[in-house]
Formats: sequence, C-alpha cells, structure tokens
Amino acid sequence: MEMQWAKIFLPEIKELIETKDFKGLRDFLRERHPADIVDILRVLDPTERVMGFRLLDKNKISEAFALFEPVEQEELLKQFTEQHAKEILTEMQPDDRTQLFDELPAHVVEKLLKLLPPLERKEANELLNYPHNSAGRIMTPEYVDLQMDMTVAKALEHIRKTGPNRETIYICYIVDETKKLRGVASLKNIILANPEQLIKDIMNENVFYVHTTDDQEKAAQVVQKYDILAVPVVDTEDRLVGIVTVDDVLDVVQEEVTEDFQRMAGIQTIEEEYFRVGFSKRILNRVTWLVVLVIAATISQAILKSYSGVLSSMIALTYFIPMLTGSGGNTGSQSSTLIIRALATGEVKSRDWWHIILREFKVGATLGFLMGLIAFTIAAISLGNISVAVTVGISLCTVVCVGNIVGLAIPLFFRFIKLDPAFASAPLIATLLDATGLVIYFEIAHRILVTTTP
Amino acid sequence: MEMQWAKIFLPEIKELIETKDFKGLRDFLRERHPADIVDILRVLDPTERVMGFRLLDKNKISEAFALFEPVEQEELLKQFTEQHAKEILTEMQPDDRTQLFDELPAHVVEKLLKLLPPLERKEANELLNYPHNSAGRIMTPEYVDLQMDMTVAKALEHIRKTGPNRETIYICYIVDETKKLRGVASLKNIILANPEQLIKDIMNENVFYVHTTDDQEKAAQVVQKYDILAVPVVDTEDRLVGIVTVDDVLDVVQEEVTEDFQRMAGIQTIEEEYFRVGFSKRILNRVTWLVVLVIAATISQAILKSYSGVLSSMIALTYFIPMLTGSGGNTGSQSSTLIIRALATGEVKSRDWWHIILREFKVGATLGFLMGLIAFTIAAISLGNISVAVTVGISLCTVVCVGNIVGLAIPLFFRFIKLDPAFASAPLIATLLDATGLVIYFEIAHRILVTTTP
Repeated sequence: MEMQWAKIFLPEIKELIETKDFKGLRDFLRERHPADIVDILRVLDPTERVMGFRLLDKNKISEAFALFEPVEQEELLKQFTEQHAKEILTEMQPDDRTQLFDELPAHVVEKLLKLLPPLERKEANELLNYPHNSAGRIMTPEYVDLQMDMTVAKALEHIRKTGPNRETIYICYIVDETKKLRGVASLKNIILANPEQLIKDIMNENVFYVHTTDDQEKAAQVVQKYDILAVPVVDTEDRLVGIVTVDDVLDVVQEEVTEDFQRMAGIQTIEEEYFRVGFSKRILNRVTWLVVLVIAATISQAILKSYSGVLSSMIALTYFIPMLTGSGGNTGSQSSTLIIRALATGEVKSRDWWHIILREFKVGATLGFLMGLIAFTIAAISLGNISVAVTVGISLCTVVCVGNIVGLAIPLFFRFIKLDPAFASAPLIATLLDATGLVIYFEIAHRILVTTTP
Repeated sequence: MEMQWAKIFLPEIKELIETKDFKGLRDFLRERHPADIVDILRVLDPTERVMGFRLLDKNKISEAFALFEPVEQEELLKQFTEQHAKEILTEMQPDDRTQLFDELPAHVVEKLLKLLPPLERKEANELLNYPHNSAGRIMTPEYVDLQMDMTVAKALEHIRKTGPNRETIYICYIVDETKKLRGVASLKNIILANPEQLIKDIMNENVFYVHTTDDQEKAAQVVQKYDILAVPVVDTEDRLVGIVTVDDVLDVVQEEVTEDFQRMAGIQTIEEEYFRVGFSKRILNRVTWLVVLVIAATISQAILKSYSGVLSSMIALTYFIPMLTGSGGNTGSQSSTLIIRALATGEVKSRDWWHIILREFKVGATLGFLMGLIAFTIAAISLGNISVAVTVGISLCTVVCVGNIVGLAIPLFFRFIKLDPAFASAPLIATLLDATGLVIYFEIAHRILVTTTP
C-alpha cells in the first residue's frame, strides 16, 4: 500500500459521512492503519470525529487516540463520555499516557488519573514522577522479563503468554529475584536456540542500559550507537523498571532536531505541528528574541554615533557597512552551525574546545584573507580610493576571523555553562558581530585614514 | 553497561598494546560490541589498527569494519592483505557494502568487485544500479520470505533455517510464485498463532511499501509514520527485492538533518564526521556561499552610494542601518526555519503556499508593528529628532513584514523548482534583506525628511 492514500480516499470518506453510511465507514476504517485513521479523523469536524471514534474497533481506538497531539487529545477527551474516556485511557500504552499527561494542566491530570483503575493509576503516577525529558518519563514498563534458570522452551511459553500486552517481545530482559538486570536475549537468539538450553547460557551479560534520570537523548544515543531495538532503563539500585523502544527514539530524535532548528533561528520551542499553532503563540514564540535583538542593536547605533566624526568626513565608509556586518554574521552562523550539530550528534565534546578553536582559526584566517582581497578589489574599483579600499579589505578579513571564532566560542560556552548550544542562534551571533564588526571597521578606518588623508 | 566506557578503558588497552599482550587484548575485544571496538581501533595508529583487526573474532570483523566511515574503510582496505580484504567484503551486509562502494572512486570499486564471489558480485552490482539516495540503494536483499500456504509451524522452521543470515527475522514478507509482495506477518503474530494455521490466514494484506527508485527519505517517512521495524521495497512489477530496516532509517534521518543544518547555514554538505574533514575541504565547503554573498553585498553598497545625498544631509540615518538590516534578516531566518522544518517533516506541503503566506502575513505585521514602535522610541530618545524616529519606526515595521514573507517565499519557491528548501540559508536571506531593507529605508527617509526638513 502506498503512503498518503488518505488524501486519495478523502472524497470517498466524505461521501460515506454525508450519506450517513456508517456501516460502510466502519468497514472502511477497519482495514486501515491507526496512523491513516488519524489522518482521516483530523479533517472531519469535531462531532464527526467523535462519531468516527465510536465506529472504530475496540483495539484501534486507543492506538489512534495516542497518535493525536496532546492539545487535540484534550479536546477529544472533553467530547467523549466519561465511560468512553475511561476505557481509552485504561487501554493506552503507559508511555503514550505519560506523554499526554505531561502536556495537560495539573488539575485535568488529577481528574483523569481518578478515572484509571488502581494499578494503572499507580503506574501512571510513578512515570510522572521522573524528570521532564528523562529516560524514565518516556519509557514503558511493559517489557518481557525472563529468569536465568528458565529453559528456552519455558521462556517461549512465557513470551507467548505475556507477549500480547508487551511493547516489544523481540528483546527480552533477564532479571534476578531482586529485579536486578542481569542480561539480555533477543527473540532471534531464543528462537534459534535448542529448547532445552538454559536462558542464562544464551543470554548476553553485556547489556547497555540507561538510568531513569538520564536525559532521553542518552537513551536515543545508545539505541542508535548499538543498533538495538530497545534500551532497558534501570533505577538507582540497578533494578529494571522499563524500556525505551526504537520508535520512541525516532520521535526523540525528531523532537530534539526541531528544537535545535528553532533555537538556532531564535525561536522558542514549539512542539505542535506547524498548522496547529495558534496566532498568539506564534507571536510569543518569536517576539522575545526579535525584541531583545532590536534593543541589542542600539549598541551598533551607539558605536556608529560615536564614530560620526570619521563617518561624516568620509561618507563612503558607510557604503561597506552591510557587506562588513553581513560577512561577519555569515561566517559566524556557518561555524556555529557546524559546531552545534557536531555537539548534538556527539562527534565533538565541549572539552575539545581548545583543539577546535585552533583548528578553525586557520580556516577562518584563510577565508578572511580571500574575502578581504575580494572586498578590497570591489572597493578599489567602485570608489577609486585606495585608502578606503585598504580599510575595507583589512576590516573584512579581521571581521571574518573574529566572526568565525565567535561562532564557535558561543555554542561551546553555552554547553560549558550547561545551556543548549543551539541557543547560539544565527540572529544572536549576527547581532553580536554587527557591533564587533563596526568597532573593528572604524578603529581600522580611523588609523588608516588619519595617516593617509591630509 | 554504561555507554562511553571505551574512553574509560583506553589506558588499559594502550597498556595491553605496549606490553604486546595480544592474548589479553583479544580476550578484551571478544567481550565488546562492534561499535565500541571501532571507538578503540580509531584511537590506535594505522599499524596497531590492522593488528587489532586481526585479533577480532571472525564474525565481528566485518561488523566492525562496516561501522567505519567510507574514507577510513578505503584506508584500511589498502593495508589489509588481498585475502583479508576479500573475506571482509564477502562477509559484509549487502547494504553496508553498497554504502562503501558509493563513496569510492569507480576504478577502486571495480577492483574490489572482482574480489567478491559471483553471487555477491551480482548482488552488489544490482544494488549499485539504483539511483543515489534511493530506497533501492540503501535496502538489503536479505529478508525472510514466506509462502501463503505454509503452516505457522512450517514458517517457523523456515525462519530458524534462514534466519541467522537475515537482517531481521521480526518482520516476514509473504510473496507468491512470481515474487510479488502479497502480505506481511510479524514474528510476534507467528509466535502467538496456532502452529496449524496457514500463513495466509494470519498475514496482513495491507502492506506499506516503497519502490526501489523512491527517495530514501520516503522509506524513512513510512517507517516513522507506521512505527514499523522495516519497510519492503518493490520493483516496477511489484516484486519484492529488499527491505529497509529501522536502524538504516535512523541513519537516513540524521544524515538528512545534518544536510539541512549545513545548507541552512550556507555550507556545502559534508558527510564525514567533524574531526575527519581535512583543511582544504573545510575551506571549499564554506567559501562558495561566503564569496557569492560578499559579491552580492555590492548591491547594498551600490544602493547606499545612490542615496549618498540623503545620507550626507542626515548622517544620523546611518546609525540605524545595522538595526534595520539585522531585524529584517532575523525575522526572515525565523520564518524560513519554521517553513523549512515543516516541509522536511511533511507537516506542510508546498502547495499550501498561499495559505501559509496569508497566515504568516498577520504574524509578520504584528511583529513589525511592535518592533517598529520600539525602534521609534529608541530613535526618538537617543536623537531627539522625531522625523528620523518616524522614518526608523516605519522602515523597521516594513522591513520586518517583508523579511518575514521573503523568509517563507524563498524555501517554498525552492521546493517548487525541485531544489532543497534548506538552500534558503540564513546568510542568503540576510544578504537579500540587507539590500531590500536599505531601499525601503531610504525611500521612506527621502519622503519623510524632504517633507519635514526645511
């Protein structure tokens, strides 16, 4: 089946609804993947959407519900009857439930928790107690655990019995009587083994794990580095409490990347999909940095004002201000992007800072020399004034060198003070370099022009 | 086991090498995951590295080799004996082999292909024939296929027999006698089913698949959307020819994201890890855009020159140039980032362009009004000249509105002409907006100042 068939079938679905052919709609939805059902339900109006939910098979309701964004889920819960909401919440995977509760106001969560049966309520409360964005917060406690002295046949029987409710059965974890994690066995190893063998003889004792309080990114890194389908999560006493699966890792990666992109453009993080963010939120997310940077630009203004003497004696200097500040900003945003990405993927650690700055200094100097030469040529041709051209060339070369290093240093510094390096946004770096570039330019101009002009 | 133990154990390993304790080193490496072995081998010098490879268990050699970057692999192959190279290449997973050949010069690939046994050589040639970055190019032909009229017991037996050499056994594909893809069954479904049931009764006929020539990103999107462990790849006649697994998808996602980050900063794509890129390549990757933009900045220079009359009559106008051009660039890079990311994740399609521009116009106008007001206040206080302050305020408001729309329009236009929207880099947008902003500023200044100044 091709993806995005949802759009192709939309007219057909709309017709089924308009002609009130509920049986036809139910049959149509029965065949579909929850992800496609969500695509369909999203384009329906709220009443139709609730009706659509009623037509779904029991086992698909909670799966489809889990795929909506938390804001949409909240909206839907308001429209469901209490009994319906209770059923869906109870059926949901524990990790999907945590994700929903994470986004709702505390008083709503409290009300929803009361709808859950005691066991699920306890579990949900435990998961909500882990720090935001931690491995514990995104894990699911529904894994398959085996004992060391089980035979392979016995283990398979156990997997058959408990499997249907588990997030994955492809990776099984071996624990001792105190619930301590002792080993891991893939279903592949179990299937390929002799039924009489003991689990402890086929398990791998070198298990890669993370702690409940580790950042979710760490869980993602382990899964990616070791190409595994899930990573186990242990508590402070090394007891197995849950697993993070590869599909959650894909979500974490996408989420972190979007966050980085937004921060690097001076936008506060927006977790919802593009078309689901309201007007006022779109303003609020963008206005902070823009206003900070307009105000910061008064520094550039003050600098220009203080050099108004040089400026008015040589108005041609003005012409090169955008080229100069622009080149500084461009170089800085290149080097900051390279370093932010390398820090994010773990290719570079912040303790390598000295090595990186030395390494990039040569690159910056080469780029600066080349660009300075071009700028000198442009200025010399267009103005015919060699002393201004020399000023422009030397300034540009200096600004590019400085811009390159500032672009590296700020993300590294942010990491050092435990801030996300991605906060070193292109706008922030450009604004800083505007001011720095102007000072460099006028200091050089002052020296060269005073000595060369009569 | 905690991640990054490689660094902790490094002194121990160095000592084993220095004391030439090869047995100790072999025992140490035997226990390790290939990803960690690679971490260790990387810090050794070339001769030690080749020696390290010799100490590895047979089954781990090709796995570890596959984890190196293609440039490193080429280096290693040169140092191996022909026999050793032949063994490793033959043992490698077909998809890892394609990735290596992809990066090597044609004459080297030809030589290496000759080392492969006929069957592997044919397979490698077929994979290399698919387009660059296509699903066919990253797939592996090593999947488990089942027939429709097999019983579950028979299927399990088949899985046990063929499984050890397959990339995954957790998703099995059902094909008919012409190799056409007819259905999919997870190992979970097979394990939980009654041994006498027929595969055709438990399989799911709604299989999500991609074509060999589809972009690798499409395969990644299908895996992510439907939370599946692998997506099957079919040829033009719907015959199953391979699968793309979730770990390859994670690599694709990271690769595409890095490419976007770099393009958005005006850097040509670098596929190697940060510390593995040489000096001249680092210059070449960055210099193109920087030089283009320095030259493009001559437009700003020409604009300023043509308004030198207005400028010299009111030197104070100069003070606000950085604030003005900066705000335009900042707003533009915010809106371009939002749209580039939304296009990349598929949340937004380029055919929504009219809807998006209308939607963001209001946001831009609001941001512009607010920032214009702040700029007016700053100018009024610092200069005490209301007509200049009015000019600055109105100009800033206009530049922000225009910057916001330009930031949206360029990525959408790039997508429309089938270019990667991420080429709409912050530097490109900033440079364009420098010129536009200056024209707006001086046109407004000209009108306001001519009418208000005597």
